[in-house]
Amino acid sequence: MSNLPPTRDRLVAAAALLFQRKGYHGVGVAEILEASEAPKGSLYHHFPNGKSDLALAAAHFAAQETLRILDASFEDANTARDGITTFCYKLAKLFTLHDNWSGCPISSTLFESPSNQEFRLNTREIFQEWHEATKAHAIAKGAEPENADAMANALWMTLQGAWTMSRVRGTSDPIKQVPMLIFGS
Amino acid sequence: MSNLPPTRDRLVAAAALLFQRKGYHGVGVAEILEASEAPKGSLYHHFPNGKSDLALAAAHFAAQETLRILDASFEDANTARDGITTFCYKLAKLFTLHDNWSGCPISSTLFESPSNQEFRLNTREIFQEWHEATKAHAIAKGAEPENADAMANALWMTLQGAWTMSRVRGTSDPIKQVPMLIFGS
Repeated sequence: MSNLPPTRDRLVAAAALLFQRKGYHGVGVAEILEASEAPKGSLYHHFPNGKSDLALAAAHFAAQETLRILDASFEDANTARDGITTFCYKLAKLFTLHDNWSGCPISSTLFESPSNQEFRLNTREIFQEWHEATKAHAIAKGAEPENADAMANALWMTLQGAWTMSRVRGTSDPIKQVPMLIFGS
Repeated sequence: MSNLPPTRDRLVAAAALLFQRKGYHGVGVAEILEASEAPKGSLYHHFPNGKSDLALAAAHFAAQETLRILDASFEDANTARDGITTFCYKLAKLFTLHDNWSGCPISSTLFESPSNQEFRLNTREIFQEWHEATKAHAIAKGAEPENADAMANALWMTLQGAWTMSRVRGTSDPIKQVPMLIFGS
């Protein structure tokens, strides 16, 4: 008996990690199969369209991870600002753990296949989910609905740019600056 | 006699446009040669390392275009805020002109070859140049040096994220929101 997680989960986790490191076009199906220790037939069994299906599943996997970090950040927060600040610091820590150069399986599918409408709609859905979750957390910590909406909007927009800047500069400092950019000093 | 611009310029402009539309990995050397009406030998004559050299040149070409738009935006501005607002609106217009789905030859080289250190340093240099130009414009319009630096930082970070969001949502609205996010309502 094997102690490995189910094949589908292994394929998705391996694909998410590889797309993050090398980009969507930089990874081949054979490499994903090898990294996930999955038999060849299993990929097309679980993902009839192969790599593009796997990319969508990897993006959703990474999106759920992000939501878990967001939830954890708000758990002990006293205010919406506290929660957002903790979230940014947690992401900055993750960024550093990944050698200051971590890509994102979500934006890699967006950027590398700009003509793929399904990838684009998928990304839109993920951002919408993050936005709604952030807004709900902010309201639960006492923010007015309208302010909570503006905060969520500012967070995700600024964070996208800050992540890029952190990659460009090779330091997590821009990610740590996000709360200050949103809320002022 | 030909009225075409010099071969090197044609190669760079064609590469910038193609990388923008299809991403770095989505474009082949043959396609760039065809689009630029350049003879095969000319590519390796001007760019000994082929496609990767061309990507660096295309990123610098696009960076200079961006600087030109920035300069024009500040020309008739009364304040730093005016200049930045005009710049964001000009970019929003460009975004819409390019079918709401324009990529960026600069970030496409950054994102699609995360392990390429030269691409990364190149991107860092471009952002630094934009930052310095923005800061100088803001100071010329009366901003204190420290404020001008903070403004330039907030602009480029927020704009990066806003461009991504505009692509995700298929509308230039996030780009138009940047001045409000930086300066408040």
